[in-house]
Amino acid sequence: MSEKDCWVGFDLGGTKMLAVVYDEKFKQLGRKRRRTKGHEGVKAGLDRIIETIELALEEAEVAPDRVRGIGVGCPGPLDLDAGVILEAPNLGWENAPLKKTLEKHFGCIAAIANDVDVGVYGEYRFGAGKKARCVVGVFPGTGIGGGCVYQGNIFRGRMTSCMEVGFMKVMADGPRAGLGPPGTLEAVASRLAISAQCAQAAFRGQAPNLRKAAGTDLSNIRSGILAAAIEAGDKEVERIVRDAAGYIGYAVGSLVNVLAPDVVVLGGGLVEALPELYVTAVRKKALQTALPSYHKTFEIVPAKLGDDTSVLGAAAWVEHVCEEDIKSI
Amino acid sequence: MSEKDCWVGFDLGGTKMLAVVYDEKFKQLGRKRRRTKGHEGVKAGLDRIIETIELALEEAEVAPDRVRGIGVGCPGPLDLDAGVILEAPNLGWENAPLKKTLEKHFGCIAAIANDVDVGVYGEYRFGAGKKARCVVGVFPGTGIGGGCVYQGNIFRGRMTSCMEVGFMKVMADGPRAGLGPPGTLEAVASRLAISAQCAQAAFRGQAPNLRKAAGTDLSNIRSGILAAAIEAGDKEVERIVRDAAGYIGYAVGSLVNVLAPDVVVLGGGLVEALPELYVTAVRKKALQTALPSYHKTFEIVPAKLGDDTSVLGAAAWVEHVCEEDIKSI
Repeated sequence: MSEKDCWVGFDLGGTKMLAVVYDEKFKQLGRKRRRTKGHEGVKAGLDRIIETIELALEEAEVAPDRVRGIGVGCPGPLDLDAGVILEAPNLGWENAPLKKTLEKHFGCIAAIANDVDVGVYGEYRFGAGKKARCVVGVFPGTGIGGGCVYQGNIFRGRMTSCMEVGFMKVMADGPRAGLGPPGTLEAVASRLAISAQCAQAAFRGQAPNLRKAAGTDLSNIRSGILAAAIEAGDKEVERIVRDAAGYIGYAVGSLVNVLAPDVVVLGGGLVEALPELYVTAVRKKALQTALPSYHKTFEIVPAKLGDDTSVLGAAAWVEHVCEEDIKSI
Repeated sequence: MSEKDCWVGFDLGGTKMLAVVYDEKFKQLGRKRRRTKGHEGVKAGLDRIIETIELALEEAEVAPDRVRGIGVGCPGPLDLDAGVILEAPNLGWENAPLKKTLEKHFGCIAAIANDVDVGVYGEYRFGAGKKARCVVGVFPGTGIGGGCVYQGNIFRGRMTSCMEVGFMKVMADGPRAGLGPPGTLEAVASRLAISAQCAQAAFRGQAPNLRKAAGTDLSNIRSGILAAAIEAGDKEVERIVRDAAGYIGYAVGSLVNVLAPDVVVLGGGLVEALPELYVTAVRKKALQTALPSYHKTFEIVPAKLGDDTSVLGAAAWVEHVCEEDIKSI
C-alpha cells in the first residue's frame, strides 16, 4: 500500500461542484469541475461527488489510496459531527450522509463544513488572514456569508455552523430579505439588494451605462456589470454600492466590538470586482462604529485566494481535523 | 508548609472592592468588602487590595500560604497576559501591575480578567449557563456589558477583553451614548438611557409614581425605583423599559445568528429588579431576529448568582487557569 500523502478539497455549489487534489504542501496536482445537477437527488448526487473526486485524482495521477483526507465545503444547515447535509434548498437535498459515504468509498477521513467557514479557514491558512489569532470573514454575494477562525479553529454552533452575519440587524426598521425580519444586513447590503436598487436607477434613467449593459432585470446585474457601469461613469450606481458597503462597515464595526478580531477579510464577487471602492467604504464606517481602543488592533483586507478559497480551505481543514485528531470539529 | 487548598476571588468596582475566600469546592469561607478609594492612586490602591484580601483571609481563618490562586475581575482595558490594568477611568488609574503585585505578595498564581467576563464565567461554572458549550452574557447597567464563554474558555481579544455588546449598532441612525457613534445599543437600552427617558416622562406628568419617588433627576432613577414605579402603575415607565429591553432583544438575536450560543444569560440590576417583564421582552424581539433554524438551539435566562457572580467567577477562573496551565489566558 502506498503512503497517504495527498489531500482532496471539494466545493459543493448550487450549480457547480469542484474537486481539487493537493500534495502535502497544498500544491495543486489536479482538478475537476462539473455541474452539480442537484435535481437528480441525494443518491445520484453522492455518486456524482465520488465520480468527480475520482476524475480529479485521475487528472492528478494520484491513486485513491494515497488520499489521507477529503474536506468538503457545503451550503445549508449541516450536522458537522455526523457529517450530514441536513438541508440544501438550492439542491433540493435533505439528509445527505456525505461524510460516511466518502469515508466508506475512499477509506480515509472526511470532514464537512460550511462553505464560507472553509473559505475563511483557507484565508487563515494561506491568504489574507495568515496565522492570525482571530480572523472574521464577511463575504457579500447574493446573500451575505460570514465565518470566524478563532485560535486556529472554525468558530461553530453546537451542531451546525454560525456566523450568519447577513442576519445581524443593522437598523431598527427597514426592508426585509425574504421572510427575514426588517433591517438585516442582507436586506440592505447583499448583491441582490444592490442590484434591485440599481435596476430602479436604470429604470429612472439615472444609470445609463448600466441600462445599456443589463437593462432593468436584476438577474442580469451581476458584480462585473456593476463595476463596468461605475467605470463608465454611472455615479448613482457608485453611490448605491458605496452605501451598501457602508452598511457592511457598520456590521464589521459591531463585529469588531464583539469579537475583537485581528483581521477582517472581505470576499466575494463584488469585493473582487471593486476592491478599492468597496474596502475603503467598509473601512470608513467600520472605524466610525468600532470603539477607539480597537482601532489599532485590526485590519480590513480583501480576500487573496479568489475562486479557490473554499476548496483549498476545505482541504486544509481536513488536514487540521486529522492532525489535531478533532473528534467533534 | 500547609497545603494550598483555597481560592480567592476579588471584584474591583468603581466604588467598592470585595474579596471572598473559597475552599476547593467553592464554598465561601470568609469575605471582606471595603470602599475602593480609587482617587488615592495606584500604589495606595494596590496596597488596599492586598489588605482587603488579608482581612478576608483573617475572617476565613485561612493562612495566606494556603491560597492557590487569586482571580480578579476588573473594569477597563486590561493587558490580560501581563495582568496589568491599562486604564480604569472610574478609578483614575493607569498601568496598575495587579497580577505581579499579588503574585509577589501572596506567592501564588494570580489572574485578572474583565469583570463582566468573569461574571459570565461564574454563571457558566455555577449558575444559569452551567457547563454549556457556549454561553453569551448580556448585563445591562449604567452601560451594557457582555461576555462569552466558548468551549470552557473566556472568548477574548488579542491583548484585552472583547464582547462590547453595548457598542453593537442596532439602528442606522439615532441617539449617541457619550462620544460613541449613533444608534448603538448602549445609547438606546442602557439603564442610563432608560432613566433619561423616564425622567422626561416624570417631567411631563406621565409617570406620577416615579416622580413622587425620584423627581426628575436621572441619577436618582435606579433599577429598584423603576420597578416600584411600574408596580405602582406607571404605564409609561413600563413601556420605556419594555422598548429598551426590545432593543437588547434585537442585539441578542443578532448575537445568536453570529455566535449560536446555547444559553444567553441576562444579568444586572434591571434584570434582577424586573426579571419577568425584562426577559419576556428580550425573548420576543430576539426570536423575531434570530434565524428560525436557531430557535430551538438556545435559551434566554436570567442570571442566577446575583451580586457574587463576578467574585465567584473570578475565583473559578483562576482555578481554571491553574489547572489548564493556561500560559496566555
